[in-house]
Amino acid sequence: MNKWEVQELILRTLKEDLGHQDMTTANLIPAGQEGTAKFLAKASGIVAGIEISQAVFTTLDSSINFEILKGDGEIIEAGETIALVQGKISTLLTGERLALNFLQRLSGIATKTNHMVEAIKYYKAEIVDTRKTTPGLRALEKYAVRVGGGRNHRFGLYDGVMIKDNHIKAAGGINKAVITLRQKVPHTLKIEVEVENLIQLREALDAGVDIIMLDNMNIEDMKTAVEITAGKALLEASGGINESNLLEVARTGVDFISAGALTHSVSSLDISFDIIQVEGA
Amino acid sequence: MNKWEVQELILRTLKEDLGHQDMTTANLIPAGQEGTAKFLAKASGIVAGIEISQAVFTTLDSSINFEILKGDGEIIEAGETIALVQGKISTLLTGERLALNFLQRLSGIATKTNHMVEAIKYYKAEIVDTRKTTPGLRALEKYAVRVGGGRNHRFGLYDGVMIKDNHIKAAGGINKAVITLRQKVPHTLKIEVEVENLIQLREALDAGVDIIMLDNMNIEDMKTAVEITAGKALLEASGGINESNLLEVARTGVDFISAGALTHSVSSLDISFDIIQVEGA
Amino acid sequence: MNKWEVQELILRTLKEDLGHQDMTTANLIPAGQEGTAKFLAKASGIVAGIEISQAVFTTLDSSINFEILKGDGEIIEAGETIALVQGKISTLLTGERLALNFLQRLSGIATKTNHMVEAIKYYKAEIVDTRKTTPGLRALEKYAVRVGGGRNHRFGLYDGVMIKDNHIKAAGGINKAVITLRQKVPHTLKIEVEVENLIQLREALDAGVDIIMLDNMNIEDMKTAVEITAGKALLEASGGINESNLLEVARTGVDFISAGALTHSVSSLDISFDIIQVEGA
Amino acid sequence: MNKWEVQELILRTLKEDLGHQDMTTANLIPAGQEGTAKFLAKASGIVAGIEISQAVFTTLDSSINFEILKGDGEIIEAGETIALVQGKISTLLTGERLALNFLQRLSGIATKTNHMVEAIKYYKAEIVDTRKTTPGLRALEKYAVRVGGGRNHRFGLYDGVMIKDNHIKAAGGINKAVITLRQKVPHTLKIEVEVENLIQLREALDAGVDIIMLDNMNIEDMKTAVEITAGKALLEASGGINESNLLEVARTGVDFISAGALTHSVSSLDISFDIIQVEGA
Amino acid sequence: MNKWEVQELILRTLKEDLGHQDMTTANLIPAGQEGTAKFLAKASGIVAGIEISQAVFTTLDSSINFEILKGDGEIIEAGETIALVQGKISTLLTGERLALNFLQRLSGIATKTNHMVEAIKYYKAEIVDTRKTTPGLRALEKYAVRVGGGRNHRFGLYDGVMIKDNHIKAAGGINKAVITLRQKVPHTLKIEVEVENLIQLREALDAGVDIIMLDNMNIEDMKTAVEITAGKALLEASGGINESNLLEVARTGVDFISAGALTHSVSSLDISFDIIQVEGA
Amino acid sequence: MNKWEVQELILRTLKEDLGHQDMTTANLIPAGQEGTAKFLAKASGIVAGIEISQAVFTTLDSSINFEILKGDGEIIEAGETIALVQGKISTLLTGERLALNFLQRLSGIATKTNHMVEAIKYYKAEIVDTRKTTPGLRALEKYAVRVGGGRNHRFGLYDGVMIKDNHIKAAGGINKAVITLRQKVPHTLKIEVEVENLIQLREALDAGVDIIMLDNMNIEDMKTAVEITAGKALLEASGGINESNLLEVARTGVDFISAGALTHSVSSLDISFDIIQVEGA
Repeated sequence: MNKWEVQELILRTLKEDLGHQDMTTANLIPAGQEGTAKFLAKASGIVAGIEISQAVFTTLDSSINFEILKGDGEIIEAGETIALVQGKISTLLTGERLALNFLQRLSGIATKTNHMVEAIKYYKAEIVDTRKTTPGLRALEKYAVRVGGGRNHRFGLYDGVMIKDNHIKAAGGINKAVITLRQKVPHTLKIEVEVENLIQLREALDAGVDIIMLDNMNIEDMKTAVEITAGKALLEASGGINESNLLEVARTGVDFISAGALTHSVSSLDISFDIIQVEGA
Repeated sequence: MNKWEVQELILRTLKEDLGHQDMTTANLIPAGQEGTAKFLAKASGIVAGIEISQAVFTTLDSSINFEILKGDGEIIEAGETIALVQGKISTLLTGERLALNFLQRLSGIATKTNHMVEAIKYYKAEIVDTRKTTPGLRALEKYAVRVGGGRNHRFGLYDGVMIKDNHIKAAGGINKAVITLRQKVPHTLKIEVEVENLIQLREALDAGVDIIMLDNMNIEDMKTAVEITAGKALLEASGGINESNLLEVARTGVDFISAGALTHSVSSLDISFDIIQVEGA
Repeated sequence: MNKWEVQELILRTLKEDLGHQDMTTANLIPAGQEGTAKFLAKASGIVAGIEISQAVFTTLDSSINFEILKGDGEIIEAGETIALVQGKISTLLTGERLALNFLQRLSGIATKTNHMVEAIKYYKAEIVDTRKTTPGLRALEKYAVRVGGGRNHRFGLYDGVMIKDNHIKAAGGINKAVITLRQKVPHTLKIEVEVENLIQLREALDAGVDIIMLDNMNIEDMKTAVEITAGKALLEASGGINESNLLEVARTGVDFISAGALTHSVSSLDISFDIIQVEGA
Repeated sequence: MNKWEVQELILRTLKEDLGHQDMTTANLIPAGQEGTAKFLAKASGIVAGIEISQAVFTTLDSSINFEILKGDGEIIEAGETIALVQGKISTLLTGERLALNFLQRLSGIATKTNHMVEAIKYYKAEIVDTRKTTPGLRALEKYAVRVGGGRNHRFGLYDGVMIKDNHIKAAGGINKAVITLRQKVPHTLKIEVEVENLIQLREALDAGVDIIMLDNMNIEDMKTAVEITAGKALLEASGGINESNLLEVARTGVDFISAGALTHSVSSLDISFDIIQVEGA
Repeated sequence: MNKWEVQELILRTLKEDLGHQDMTTANLIPAGQEGTAKFLAKASGIVAGIEISQAVFTTLDSSINFEILKGDGEIIEAGETIALVQGKISTLLTGERLALNFLQRLSGIATKTNHMVEAIKYYKAEIVDTRKTTPGLRALEKYAVRVGGGRNHRFGLYDGVMIKDNHIKAAGGINKAVITLRQKVPHTLKIEVEVENLIQLREALDAGVDIIMLDNMNIEDMKTAVEITAGKALLEASGGINESNLLEVARTGVDFISAGALTHSVSSLDISFDIIQVEGA
Repeated sequence: MNKWEVQELILRTLKEDLGHQDMTTANLIPAGQEGTAKFLAKASGIVAGIEISQAVFTTLDSSINFEILKGDGEIIEAGETIALVQGKISTLLTGERLALNFLQRLSGIATKTNHMVEAIKYYKAEIVDTRKTTPGLRALEKYAVRVGGGRNHRFGLYDGVMIKDNHIKAAGGINKAVITLRQKVPHTLKIEVEVENLIQLREALDAGVDIIMLDNMNIEDMKTAVEITAGKALLEASGGINESNLLEVARTGVDFISAGALTHSVSSLDISFDIIQVEGA
């Protein structure tokens, strides 16, 4: 997501929450009243999205001072302050909820990713994300995966070629599909094929594909796949991988492990926003 | 979210995934090839978002036939078919991921809401949502809460007045805050105050507010609050309410129980999209 | 209207007037020529929209100096200067018309509102606006009503519930309509019913509605309505209220008097924009 | 305003009124309930904007049937029906206000224009509008002027050249200004100069301008101007022209009379929208 | 094109090239690394679009320093530096291609225009452009024509009246068409007629049109047309005019010569962008 | 460019030409008058963009009948009809210019591409495009290249990795740059390096890059590069390749030849739009 798309997203979501006016704050808080608030971690995790939260406030009011104490990628423990926000009380109150909605969700993703990355850190395999992201937030969520130490798969249907089972059927086999695509797509894109068994794996290798996704394959077959492949293609394990079997998968020697749950089933990291000082109060 | 905003959301998120072209499908699948796919439940829950999923496909291609077998609000069990989609294979493959991303998230919310609603169905209290929604998806997520049997709190800062602790400080007390707001906001909006203890509750009642939120109050105080209030205001319990203490809260006699987790910490409902027939294949 | 919507409105309307280029000014006025102009009142009234006018010029050219002598809400007499504008002559000439179009219309609304407010200032009743606003300018026009001392009714169909005659017919009576809506709409919104006679008034009171609009009711019935209601609901008089009967209506003791003419039939306040100095000329 | 701009305007203004949802109608009116409503004239005038009103309803709901009985430009008397609208009651109720806001304002403009046009119909002079229009509605308001029998001046700063007093000062005289502009602007545009007295008129004629605006000139000077000009340029009277002196101005023999009040000070034409039948009710 | 449309165009085209991220630069170039680059002419011509190129970089990064050595309209020779760009290397690399795409195309147009203008500089005729521009770039391309010394014809269908052969057929003759249009279009627009022979020329003159386009007329007829017209209308030669017959056309005495090739068949001017210094490297 | 972006482009460019109204056509052509026009080739070439041209007319008026006789990719000779357009004369006249502007430019690109493709058809090398496209039209121009038989390079900075000279300097050598990028970019993208000599070629091969661009290399070096590379990477020749040396380059055995002139220096293909029948005329 380039900087303009981030800005558009913040504007669009501010409008979603704010509507024509913050009825409570606009009618109650004195125009000149200033103060300070802090983002406070109430659980441990990895920070992600603090600059987005900053942009929420500065988009509302360019005079806000925002001091980041724990930047994206840093570890936080419950009780630690992530950032201080100083400026008009009315801005603090109006921006609070949206800033937290971004920060908590992205930190939740980074934290979850980091748990998986740490769990297999002694193995070659890298954790990669998927396209199972929240509609409208893909680039931010993929950013949070990187912040957590993970790696990005393709960003969309446009910047990668992935041949799935249904594509194979329609094209009349892996080999035919690969030949057709290699003639047509820009020569700058690699070609990935999803296989379900070792027979398909061999077909994919014969067709000379660049990446092979092992879809819902058992551990024994994955091991065999790694041996057969012998570095002639990148191998990516996918499907049904959770914390209980993650280490086992990594041990097979695959290059990548992709996990949709990194983005589709996330708990917000518990963070609060507290006004700690009202000037003149 | 009015119908144009839904349409804009679908377009924007389709573009997010599709970019300039679905490289695999556009270059591989024969233009005329048709087939049928189904949305298959792989876990039990409440359907929400099936019409959004339909709109994803019909936005891509108006000739798609979409038959809903389980509509929004219906209970599904693992193995049941939610909908059938018939049309061009290329459309099915291109739209699959986004349609699932909407359907799984919204069904996840409706299912979670429904669990809470069912848990307290013999009590007066209603489950209500919060503003802790995913940026950009608030209206859809609030819709999913309704589908699950919950009730909506205000949609944003514009259609409700909520006086929080910091507003009280800035205004110099609950009474002053209420007087100021009652003179300024449209007379069509109720005024809600967040209180943390019974002293504040009495102040709020004296000020004649319409709704009082009991924030992180213990069960005993909630019971006392219900007695003191005696119907003179609506009471809403909030903060730290989970499945373990939900029933206890409902038993205090409050009117509403609001829960941010309905929307900020959701697991997607497990649903797959399978092509079950390729015509001519 | 939040600040971005104001900015979008100014941009959109500047483009409406400017098109690809101000043919006269761009081709005639020397690029560096500077000067000063003033907004001059040519009739008495209440200023509204001077900051919008300022934003027209600063949107065209951020180097413009704009000094407000009479701010929104202040009384002006013919011959008084409202603001001084200093900067490039080309900017002054290009922005003049749009700035006046905003300022004259909004000041016209504030002035008209103020006349009504002043006429009944010794009575409880407050003057409120309606949804009979100019398409695209609702929030600005409602702002001008506030500037003139009036009060806002709901902003749109989304932030208030108003049950009209046709709603009543469709729902099978006032009581049924109120019950249905109270179960479904956010509990933060009040419910208003429009009644045409005292029988309906009693039904509305029995249903426990929050606000009752007395639609085109005669003075005697309004008085009786106030007595019957006795503070159990807010009363709003509406329909056919003009300067000749306004005082009489206020004397009945209703809480609010709403008037569509505040925004649908307005004369621009007479204000001119005169270049008073051309530097070096 | 091309058809897409009209469509965008209707969408934007529908969203302005509707927000996320019509709370009353969406929660109260049965989804399938249908009925018929009519637009009823409550005063006499000229219809303008009935197709815009139709588009409001069909944008909300493409299944609406809209029968126009009195089209744009037709004369209506109080009590006459302008159009019938048949379809879902919920659509009728949600679209009513915006449709009326357009129809009443545009008909108000057409009616006012027509009064002026009729008043001078035995003279050569044509009534033309100005740029003193409501921000955002210029093309519609200029359309209403045409519907009322008036004629359009330039649409904006881009499609006409108008040299005013301040332009003249900056350029060092009428002659120099005309020479500069004639060399630079597209040769497809005429050049108009605003003059305040007969000396300036002669200068403008000598410079060979195409159109001369007589600004706030008295009747005698206008007559002399017509004689001096003798058809060598078009003459346009402007400034302070009202119903009391309109005829006198026309008699001077000028070609055009421009009047800002056509669009800046308009009363809505009184029109109501009544549901006349609820099916099954 | 007003300044906001230019800004929108730059943003839109930056997004077109950049997408979610410049994969190479964002992942490779150190964030703080700075340097200097230059735009270097590799062929002679007229500069046009250097400020657009500047805006590309400053839109990406407001801290970029951009020094223009050869401004729009200046002559450049191969080997000369047009501008220096100093700032982050990552910005230089990301913006390079789009900046060149604008600068090379617009300079190509200005150069081509200038060749034609110079070729007939001893004659009255002026070179004018057409509506045969690149979709989306009309105002910029017409600007480049002016930079090259040419003159603009109308900008679109809205700011000029041009009666072509097909219009004449449909209206039943030149005279009828002119009468109809003169009654309806704003009196600020001139009326132009396209004629193919001297008979039509005489009809157009009789109808009193302002401008006559001589479409694909031979040199002899053009000469006769100039004699017949004798200054009673402006004459514009058009169709099949190229460098070999341009001078001959100018000699006939026509007022304008319009050429679509100025914008529809242009070679980019050869300009390169070279990083000449990397700080600390 | 997905279908919505094409639609947005057509709308945006129609508005660019049309503005508020087609003054000539709207005021002159009878509303109901129908007729037929044809697109007529006046030179030989390859058709590209006929469906875009169709969309221009159907966007203006959905009742237009558009019959394509020569589809995209077909060869046309001067005098052949490409398509017939039947419907309202007013639509034909208003849409003509924009439809031609698209069709002529895209056909010009396809024709130019096809000349290059045909010239080397007995060699392995494929003709590929670059990012030197017209701002705003990249996807359409890349489509036209495919229509002409060419192949697309990456679409933008987001879907391919290209390490140029300046990247190499900043990263401290080819090897380091490749290592850094391979760790960071999605594993679905290939890595391309631009080299200027055989020493760099060997470095690139040692670093294991996927594609090597031979930038402005002479024929002898290219031949040697092909031998050294021996299929271990794809080779792309670029820079200064024109019709005189194209064959020689192809003979070296490179895999791809990229040419910016395909899109940055194009002559429109000569095509006219003629109304061939006016119904009732």
